[in-house]
Amino acid sequence: MKLVSFLDGQRLGYGAVKDGGIVDLSARLGAEAPTIKDCIATSLGKAALETGRAAPDLALAAVKLLPPVPAPGKILCIGVNYADHAAEMGRKPPPYPTVFTRFADTLAGPGDDLILPRNSADFDYEGELAVVIGRPARHVREADAMAHVAGYSIFQDASVRDFQRHTGQFTPGKNFPATGGFGPWLVTADEIRDPHALSIETMVNGTVRQHGSTADMIFRIPAIIAYLSSFTALHPGDVIATGTPSGVAAGQTPPPWLKAEDVVEVEIGQIGLLRHRVSEEG
Amino acid sequence: MKLVSFLDGQRLGYGAVKDGGIVDLSARLGAEAPTIKDCIATSLGKAALETGRAAPDLALAAVKLLPPVPAPGKILCIGVNYADHAAEMGRKPPPYPTVFTRFADTLAGPGDDLILPRNSADFDYEGELAVVIGRPARHVREADAMAHVAGYSIFQDASVRDFQRHTGQFTPGKNFPATGGFGPWLVTADEIRDPHALSIETMVNGTVRQHGSTADMIFRIPAIIAYLSSFTALHPGDVIATGTPSGVAAGQTPPPWLKAEDVVEVEIGQIGLLRHRVSEEG
Repeated sequence: MKLVSFLDGQRLGYGAVKDGGIVDLSARLGAEAPTIKDCIATSLGKAALETGRAAPDLALAAVKLLPPVPAPGKILCIGVNYADHAAEMGRKPPPYPTVFTRFADTLAGPGDDLILPRNSADFDYEGELAVVIGRPARHVREADAMAHVAGYSIFQDASVRDFQRHTGQFTPGKNFPATGGFGPWLVTADEIRDPHALSIETMVNGTVRQHGSTADMIFRIPAIIAYLSSFTALHPGDVIATGTPSGVAAGQTPPPWLKAEDVVEVEIGQIGLLRHRVSEEG
Repeated sequence: MKLVSFLDGQRLGYGAVKDGGIVDLSARLGAEAPTIKDCIATSLGKAALETGRAAPDLALAAVKLLPPVPAPGKILCIGVNYADHAAEMGRKPPPYPTVFTRFADTLAGPGDDLILPRNSADFDYEGELAVVIGRPARHVREADAMAHVAGYSIFQDASVRDFQRHTGQFTPGKNFPATGGFGPWLVTADEIRDPHALSIETMVNGTVRQHGSTADMIFRIPAIIAYLSSFTALHPGDVIATGTPSGVAAGQTPPPWLKAEDVVEVEIGQIGLLRHRVSEEG
C-alpha cells in the first residue's frame, strides 16, 4: 500500500493510493483507527483488505497531500551516513550513528513549498530514505529491528548550512520551518523486499545533483533502530531520516545553493518521487 | 505566582501555590484556559486575581506534582553557556548559542525519579535555569525578547556522557527517558526582577557540586530567545534550558557519576529547589 495523509477541504484524512485515486481509509476505519498513526499501529491488515476491495473515493488532484504522518511524535535524522557524503563535508565516518532531531513544524508535505529563509542564502538539499516506525521500540536488537518498521517514504532534509555550522550542534540549520520535505506517501514494508538496494537521486530543476544507492549507508536500518532505541522509545509514526549520499551543494565550489523558484525532486526506487518548489519566506 | 501542574488522582490540573496549598486554577479557569499552556498564553492576569482572592483548594501533599508544563511543544537546551563549564568540558566558548533539543518524554517532574540508564554508568547532573515562553516568538529582536517570557523554573539537564560523546551531536546523551528534571513550579516573570542575578547550586546527597550565578551566562536570555526565534517559532509553554555552570561530574577525575539512590537537588534563588532521587532503569 501507498498510504497518504490529506486535507479534503478542512477535513484531515488518510487513505491508500489506488488507480490514481485515494481509498479513504479514515472514513472506512475511523472508528478503530482515527489517525494514520493508529492505522499504522493497529490496522494495516484491515487497511489492505479495504484497499483491495474498494474503488477510490477521492481523486488525488481533489485533495491536498500532507506529510504521510503529519505530526510525528519524533523525527530523528542520521547525519553523515554515506561515506562519499562524509568525505565531501570534510567529516570522518563516525563510530556511532550521528543523530539530530527535527521539530514537526519543519515538515513540508508534497503540496507545500520548501521555504528559503530570509536570514540565510546557504540553503541546501539532501535526498534521503525515510523509515516510519510501526511498532513501539525500546532496547531493540538489530536482529529484531525490521519488525518495527511500518514502511518507507522520501525525506528532503533541506539544510541551512551557515546555521548548521554556527556551533558543533546541527539543530539550528535543520529546524527552519518547512525545510523537511516528507512524502509523497508511505510505502508499506511488505512492498519493499530490500530497503538497502534502492536507487536514490536528487534533481534540481531537472539536473541530477545526487545519485546514490541505499546500499551505501554506513549504518543500515537495523543498526540505526537498535541504536536509537537504546536511548529513546520509538512509537508508531515516528520518522527516521537515514542520511544522504554525496552531491549536496555544500560539497561544491561555489555551492549551487537552492534559490527561490527552484524545483527540487528526490526519487527513490520502488517508492516514488517527492517534488517541492522553493519559495521565499514571506 | 508559582504555577504548578499536578495529578489529582487521574485528573490533570494546574494551579498556583498559596499558603502551602494549591489554588486549583484549572477548575476555576478551565472554560477559557483548559491547559496550563492556555493559561500562560491568555489568562495569567485572571489567574493572579483568582489566586489572590481564593483559599487553597488542595494540599500540596495530596497531589502528584508534574513538570510545570507537562508536554512542552519544544524543549530547547543551550550547551556550554557558562565560561567555567566550557573550560571544564574542554570546549571553547562558542560564537553562537549551542542548541540541542530534548523530547518531552525525557522530562521528570518533581514527583518522579531520574532514571539511571541500564546501558551507561556515566550519568551526570547539570543544574540550569529554565525559561518558559509566554507569547509566540519568531524573528524577535533582543530588545523585545523578554516580553515573550512567561516565567522561570529549574531544569536538571541530566546527561549520559558516553552517549553524548559518541559523535559530535549531543542528542543521544540528552534524550534518555526521565533525565530532564523540571520544576517544581513556574515562577511568573513579574516576580523575578533580574533573571541574570540568581544564585544556582546543585547538591548531590547534600554536598554542593555546582555553585554559580546566572550572571555568568555567556549568552543571556534575550540573546538566546532572539537566536532561537531566528530559526524556529516559539510558542507558549516551550521551555529553554539555559545551560549549566561548572562542577559537573564529567569535569572531575575520577568523575563522581550519579548512582542509584543518590538525591540530587538544584536550588535557584527566588525560584526554589528541585529535588530528585536517582533510581535504576527497571
